[in-house]
Amino acid sequence: MARQTSENWFGCPFRFGANVLGDGWSLLILRDLIFREARHYGDFVAAGEGISTNILADRLQRLEAEGVISKQQDPDRAVRVIYRLTEKGRGLVPILMAIIDWSEQWDDRTEVPAAFIKAYREDRSGFVASVVDGLELAEAKPGEGA
Amino acid sequence: MARQTSENWFGCPFRFGANVLGDGWSLLILRDLIFREARHYGDFVAAGEGISTNILADRLQRLEAEGVISKQQDPDRAVRVIYRLTEKGRGLVPILMAIIDWSEQWDDRTEVPAAFIKAYREDRSGFVASVVDGLELAEAKPGEGA
Repeated sequence: MARQTSENWFGCPFRFGANVLGDGWSLLILRDLIFREARHYGDFVAAGEGISTNILADRLQRLEAEGVISKQQDPDRAVRVIYRLTEKGRGLVPILMAIIDWSEQWDDRTEVPAAFIKAYREDRSGFVASVVDGLELAEAKPGEGA
Repeated sequence: MARQTSENWFGCPFRFGANVLGDGWSLLILRDLIFREARHYGDFVAAGEGISTNILADRLQRLEAEGVISKQQDPDRAVRVIYRLTEKGRGLVPILMAIIDWSEQWDDRTEVPAAFIKAYREDRSGFVASVVDGLELAEAKPGEGA
Protein backbone atom coordinates (compact mmCIF):
# COMPACT_ATOMS: atom_id res chain seq x y z
CA MET A 1 0.00 0.00 0.00
CA ALA A 2 0.98 3.59 -0.38
CA ARG A 3 3.13 5.07 2.30
CA GLN A 4 1.06 6.81 4.89
CA THR A 5 2.80 10.04 3.94
CA SER A 6 1.25 10.08 0.48
CA GLU A 7 -1.56 12.44 -0.29
CA ASN A 8 -5.03 11.04 0.43
CA TRP A 9 -3.73 8.02 2.35
CA PHE A 10 -6.58 8.11 4.81
CA GLY A 11 -10.21 7.46 4.16
CA CYS A 12 -10.24 4.73 1.51
CA PRO A 13 -12.20 1.77 2.90
CA PHE A 14 -9.90 -0.74 1.21
CA ARG A 15 -6.74 0.79 2.57
CA PHE A 16 -8.44 0.80 5.95
CA GLY A 17 -9.61 -2.80 5.58
CA ALA A 18 -6.31 -4.04 4.21
CA ASN A 19 -4.62 -3.25 7.51
CA VAL A 20 -6.69 -6.01 9.05
CA LEU A 21 -7.68 -8.27 6.17
CA GLY A 22 -4.89 -7.91 3.64
CA ASP A 23 -2.82 -10.63 5.24
CA GLY A 24 -3.49 -14.33 5.01
CA TRP A 25 -2.31 -15.19 8.50
CA SER A 26 -4.54 -12.55 10.07
CA LEU A 27 -7.52 -14.00 8.19
CA LEU A 28 -6.78 -17.44 9.67
CA ILE A 29 -6.43 -16.02 13.19
CA LEU A 30 -9.80 -14.29 12.78
CA ARG A 31 -11.29 -17.56 11.52
CA ASP A 32 -10.02 -19.36 14.63
CA LEU A 33 -11.40 -16.65 16.93
CA ILE A 34 -14.81 -16.58 15.29
CA PHE A 35 -15.46 -20.16 14.24
CA ARG A 36 -13.16 -22.34 16.32
CA GLU A 37 -13.36 -20.83 19.78
CA ALA A 38 -9.65 -20.10 19.87
CA ARG A 39 -8.85 -18.06 22.98
CA HIS A 40 -5.29 -18.83 24.01
CA TYR A 41 -2.00 -18.49 22.22
CA GLY A 42 -1.72 -22.27 22.07
CA ASP A 43 -5.08 -22.59 20.31
CA PHE A 44 -3.72 -20.68 17.32
CA VAL A 45 -0.55 -22.73 17.26
CA ALA A 46 -2.66 -25.90 17.45
CA ALA A 47 -4.84 -24.82 14.51
CA GLY A 48 -2.55 -26.83 12.27
CA GLU A 49 -1.61 -24.13 9.79
CA GLY A 50 2.05 -24.34 10.67
CA ILE A 51 2.18 -20.72 11.75
CA SER A 52 5.54 -19.81 13.26
CA THR A 53 5.46 -18.37 16.76
CA ASN A 54 7.07 -15.09 15.67
CA ILE A 55 4.50 -14.54 12.90
CA LEU A 56 1.68 -15.45 15.29
CA ALA A 57 2.94 -13.05 17.95
CA ASP A 58 3.32 -10.30 15.33
CA ARG A 59 -0.16 -10.76 13.91
CA LEU A 60 -1.82 -10.91 17.33
CA GLN A 61 -0.05 -7.69 18.21
CA ARG A 62 -1.14 -6.03 14.97
CA LEU A 63 -4.76 -7.11 15.41
CA GLU A 64 -4.64 -5.73 18.94
CA ALA A 65 -3.11 -2.46 17.69
CA GLU A 66 -5.93 -2.21 15.14
CA GLY A 67 -8.44 -2.60 17.97
CA VAL A 68 -9.84 -5.81 16.52
CA ILE A 69 -8.86 -8.07 19.42
CA SER A 70 -8.18 -7.46 23.08
CA LYS A 71 -5.85 -9.25 25.44
CA GLN A 72 -6.79 -10.07 29.03
CA GLN A 73 -5.55 -12.18 31.89
CA ASP A 74 -7.24 -15.54 32.07
CA PRO A 75 -9.29 -15.44 35.30
CA ASP A 76 -8.73 -19.19 35.73
CA ARG A 77 -4.99 -19.06 35.38
CA ALA A 78 -3.32 -15.71 35.75
CA VAL A 79 -0.22 -16.60 33.74
CA ARG A 80 -2.33 -17.21 30.67
CA VAL A 81 -3.68 -14.57 28.33
CA ILE A 82 -7.09 -14.69 26.67
CA TYR A 83 -7.60 -13.16 23.25
CA ARG A 84 -11.06 -11.92 22.39
CA LEU A 85 -12.66 -10.05 19.56
CA THR A 86 -13.66 -6.50 20.34
CA GLU A 87 -16.89 -5.02 19.02
CA LYS A 88 -14.88 -3.80 16.03
CA GLY A 89 -13.56 -7.33 15.56
CA ARG A 90 -17.02 -8.90 15.76
CA GLY A 91 -18.00 -6.40 13.07
CA LEU A 92 -15.81 -8.39 10.69
CA VAL A 93 -18.16 -11.38 10.78
CA PRO A 94 -20.13 -10.25 7.68
CA ILE A 95 -16.86 -9.99 5.72
CA LEU A 96 -15.73 -13.45 6.81
CA MET A 97 -19.13 -14.92 5.98
CA ALA A 98 -18.94 -13.32 2.51
CA ILE A 99 -15.51 -14.95 2.04
CA ILE A 100 -16.95 -18.33 3.06
CA ASP A 101 -19.85 -17.82 0.65
CA TRP A 102 -17.56 -17.03 -2.28
CA SER A 103 -15.08 -19.80 -1.50
CA GLU A 104 -17.82 -22.38 -1.17
CA GLN A 105 -18.99 -21.41 -4.63
CA TRP A 106 -15.61 -21.49 -6.34
CA ASP A 107 -13.51 -24.03 -4.45
CA ASP A 108 -14.02 -27.55 -5.81
CA ARG A 109 -12.58 -29.00 -2.62
CA THR A 110 -14.50 -26.81 -0.22
CA GLU A 111 -15.02 -28.20 3.25
CA VAL A 112 -17.80 -25.72 4.07
CA PRO A 113 -20.73 -27.79 5.39
CA ALA A 114 -23.74 -27.65 3.06
CA ALA A 115 -26.22 -26.96 5.88
CA PHE A 116 -24.07 -24.10 7.18
CA ILE A 117 -23.91 -22.24 3.89
CA LYS A 118 -27.55 -22.99 3.09
CA ALA A 119 -28.66 -21.40 6.36
CA TYR A 120 -26.50 -18.37 5.63
CA ARG A 121 -27.84 -17.91 2.11
CA GLU A 122 -31.41 -18.15 3.30
CA ASP A 123 -31.00 -15.34 5.81
CA ARG A 124 -27.67 -13.58 5.64
CA SER A 125 -28.21 -10.88 8.26
CA GLY A 126 -29.97 -13.27 10.65
CA PHE A 127 -27.13 -15.77 10.32
CA VAL A 128 -24.48 -13.09 10.94
CA ALA A 129 -26.41 -11.91 14.01
CA SER A 130 -26.51 -15.44 15.43
CA VAL A 131 -22.76 -15.89 14.95
CA VAL A 132 -22.11 -12.56 16.70
CA ASP A 133 -24.51 -13.47 19.52
CA GLY A 134 -22.61 -16.72 20.02
CA LEU A 135 -19.34 -14.81 20.32
CA GLU A 136 -20.78 -12.38 22.85
CA LEU A 137 -22.14 -15.26 24.89
CA ALA A 138 -18.79 -17.07 24.85
CA GLU A 139 -17.02 -13.89 25.89
CA ALA A 140 -19.34 -13.31 28.80
CA LYS A 141 -17.97 -16.49 30.38
CA PRO A 142 -14.32 -16.52 29.37
CA GLY A 143 -13.30 -19.15 31.93
CA GLU A 144 -15.24 -21.95 30.29
CA GLY A 145 -14.18 -24.13 27.42
CA ALA A 146 -10.57 -23.07 27.74
CA MET B 1 -0.30 -19.82 5.24
CA ALA B 2 0.56 -23.44 5.65
CA ARG B 3 2.59 -25.00 2.92
CA GLN B 4 0.37 -26.68 0.40
CA THR B 5 2.01 -29.97 1.28
CA SER B 6 0.59 -29.93 4.80
CA GLU B 7 -2.27 -32.17 5.69
CA ASN B 8 -5.72 -30.68 5.02
CA TRP B 9 -4.37 -27.72 3.07
CA PHE B 10 -7.29 -27.72 0.72
CA GLY B 11 -10.88 -26.94 1.44
CA CYS B 12 -10.76 -24.24 4.09
CA PRO B 13 -12.63 -21.19 2.77
CA PHE B 14 -10.20 -18.78 4.40
CA ARG B 15 -7.14 -20.42 2.96
CA PHE B 16 -8.92 -20.36 -0.38
CA GLY B 17 -9.96 -16.74 0.01
CA ALA B 18 -6.58 -15.61 1.30
CA ASN B 19 -5.00 -16.46 -2.05
CA VAL B 20 -7.00 -13.62 -3.54
CA LEU B 21 -7.82 -11.32 -0.63
CA GLY B 22 -4.99 -11.80 1.81
CA ASP B 23 -2.86 -9.16 0.15
CA GLY B 24 -3.38 -5.43 0.41
CA TRP B 25 -2.27 -4.63 -3.12
CA SER B 26 -4.63 -7.16 -4.64
CA LEU B 27 -7.48 -5.60 -2.66
CA LEU B 28 -6.67 -2.20 -4.16
CA ILE B 29 -6.47 -3.63 -7.70
CA LEU B 30 -9.88 -5.23 -7.19
CA ARG B 31 -11.20 -1.91 -5.90
CA ASP B 32 -9.97 -0.15 -9.03
CA LEU B 33 -11.50 -2.81 -11.30
CA ILE B 34 -14.87 -2.74 -9.56
CA PHE B 35 -15.37 0.86 -8.50
CA ARG B 36 -13.03 2.94 -10.63
CA GLU B 37 -13.38 1.46 -14.10
CA ALA B 38 -9.70 0.58 -14.27
CA ARG B 39 -9.05 -1.49 -17.40
CA HIS B 40 -5.49 -0.85 -18.53
CA TYR B 41 -2.17 -1.32 -16.82
CA GLY B 42 -1.75 2.44 -16.68
CA ASP B 43 -5.04 2.89 -14.83
CA PHE B 44 -3.69 0.91 -11.88
CA VAL B 45 -0.43 2.86 -11.91
CA ALA B 46 -2.43 6.10 -12.04
CA ALA B 47 -4.57 5.10 -9.05
CA GLY B 48 -2.14 7.02 -6.86
CA GLU B 49 -1.25 4.26 -4.41
CA GLY B 50 2.39 4.36 -5.38
CA ILE B 51 2.35 0.73 -6.47
CA SER B 52 5.63 -0.29 -8.07
CA THR B 53 5.43 -1.75 -11.56
CA ASN B 54 6.92 -5.08 -10.51
CA ILE B 55 4.40 -5.52 -7.69
CA LEU B 56 1.56 -4.51 -9.99
CA ALA B 57 2.66 -6.96 -12.69
CA ASP B 58 3.00 -9.72 -10.08
CA ARG B 59 -0.43 -9.12 -8.56
CA LEU B 60 -2.17 -8.91 -11.95
CA GLN B 61 -0.54 -12.21 -12.88
CA ARG B 62 -1.62 -13.80 -9.60
CA LEU B 63 -5.20 -12.60 -9.95
CA GLU B 64 -5.23 -13.98 -13.48
CA ALA B 65 -3.79 -17.30 -12.27
CA GLU B 66 -6.55 -17.45 -9.65
CA GLY B 67 -9.12 -16.97 -12.42
CA VAL B 68 -10.35 -13.71 -10.93
CA ILE B 69 -9.37 -11.48 -13.84
CA SER B 70 -8.80 -12.10 -17.53
CA LYS B 71 -6.48 -10.42 -19.96
CA GLN B 72 -7.46 -9.55 -23.52
CA GLN B 73 -6.21 -7.49 -26.38
CA ASP B 74 -7.77 -4.04 -26.53
CA PRO B 75 -9.91 -4.06 -29.70
CA ASP B 76 -9.20 -0.34 -30.13
CA ARG B 77 -5.45 -0.60 -29.89
CA ALA B 78 -3.92 -4.00 -30.30
CA VAL B 79 -0.76 -3.26 -28.36
CA ARG B 80 -2.76 -2.58 -25.24
CA VAL B 81 -4.15 -5.17 -22.89
CA ILE B 82 -7.51 -4.92 -21.15
CA TYR B 83 -8.00 -6.45 -17.72
CA ARG B 84 -11.47 -7.53 -16.76
CA LEU B 85 -13.08 -9.35 -13.90
CA THR B 86 -14.24 -12.86 -14.66
CA GLU B 87 -17.49 -14.22 -13.24
CA LYS B 88 -15.44 -15.53 -10.31
CA GLY B 89 -14.00 -12.04 -9.88
CA ARG B 90 -17.39 -10.36 -9.99
CA GLY B 91 -18.39 -12.82 -7.29
CA LEU B 92 -16.05 -10.91 -4.97
CA VAL B 93 -18.31 -7.82 -4.99
CA PRO B 94 -20.23 -8.87 -1.83
CA ILE B 95 -16.92 -9.26 0.03
CA LEU B 96 -15.69 -5.85 -1.08
CA MET B 97 -19.01 -4.25 -0.16
CA ALA B 98 -18.78 -5.86 3.29
CA ILE B 99 -15.28 -4.36 3.67
CA ILE B 100 -16.62 -0.91 2.70
CA ASP B 101 -19.47 -1.34 5.19
CA TRP B 102 -17.14 -2.22 8.05
CA SER B 103 -14.58 0.46 7.21
CA GLU B 104 -17.22 3.14 6.93
CA GLN B 105 -18.35 2.21 10.43
CA TRP B 106 -14.92 2.16 12.05
CA ASP B 107 -12.78 4.63 10.12
CA ASP B 108 -13.13 8.14 11.50
CA ARG B 109 -11.71 9.56 8.30
CA THR B 110 -13.77 7.47 5.93
CA GLU B 111 -14.32 8.87 2.47
CA VAL B 112 -17.22 6.51 1.72
CA PRO B 113 -20.11 8.69 0.49
CA ALA B 114 -23.06 8.65 2.90
CA ALA B 115 -25.63 8.07 0.14
CA PHE B 116 -23.62 5.13 -1.22
CA ILE B 117 -23.45 3.25 2.07
CA LYS B 118 -27.03 4.13 2.96
CA ALA B 119 -28.29 2.59 -0.29
CA TYR B 120 -26.22 -0.54 0.39
CA ARG B 121 -27.48 -0.94 3.95
CA GLU B 122 -31.08 -0.55 2.86
CA ASP B 123 -30.85 -3.38 0.33
CA ARG B 124 -27.56 -5.27 0.40
CA SER B 125 -28.29 -7.93 -2.20
CA GLY B 126 -30.02 -5.49 -4.55
CA PHE B 127 -27.08 -3.09 -4.29
CA VAL B 128 -24.55 -5.86 -4.99
CA ALA B 129 -26.59 -6.96 -8.00
CA SER B 130 -26.61 -3.44 -9.41
CA VAL B 131 -22.82 -3.13 -9.03
CA VAL B 132 -22.36 -6.49 -10.80
CA ASP B 133 -24.79 -5.47 -13.55
CA GLY B 134 -22.79 -2.29 -14.11
CA LEU B 135 -19.59 -4.33 -14.48
CA GLU B 136 -21.19 -6.70 -16.98
CA LEU B 137 -22.48 -3.77 -18.98
CA ALA B 138 -19.07 -2.10 -19.01
CA GLU B 139 -17.44 -5.33 -20.11
CA ALA B 140 -19.88 -5.78 -22.96
CA LYS B 141 -18.42 -2.64 -24.54
CA PRO B 142 -14.74 -2.75 -23.62
CA GLY B 143 -13.68 -0.17 -26.19
CA GLU B 144 -15.47 2.70 -24.52
CA GLY B 145 -14.34 4.83 -21.66
CA ALA B 146 -10.77 3.65 -22.05
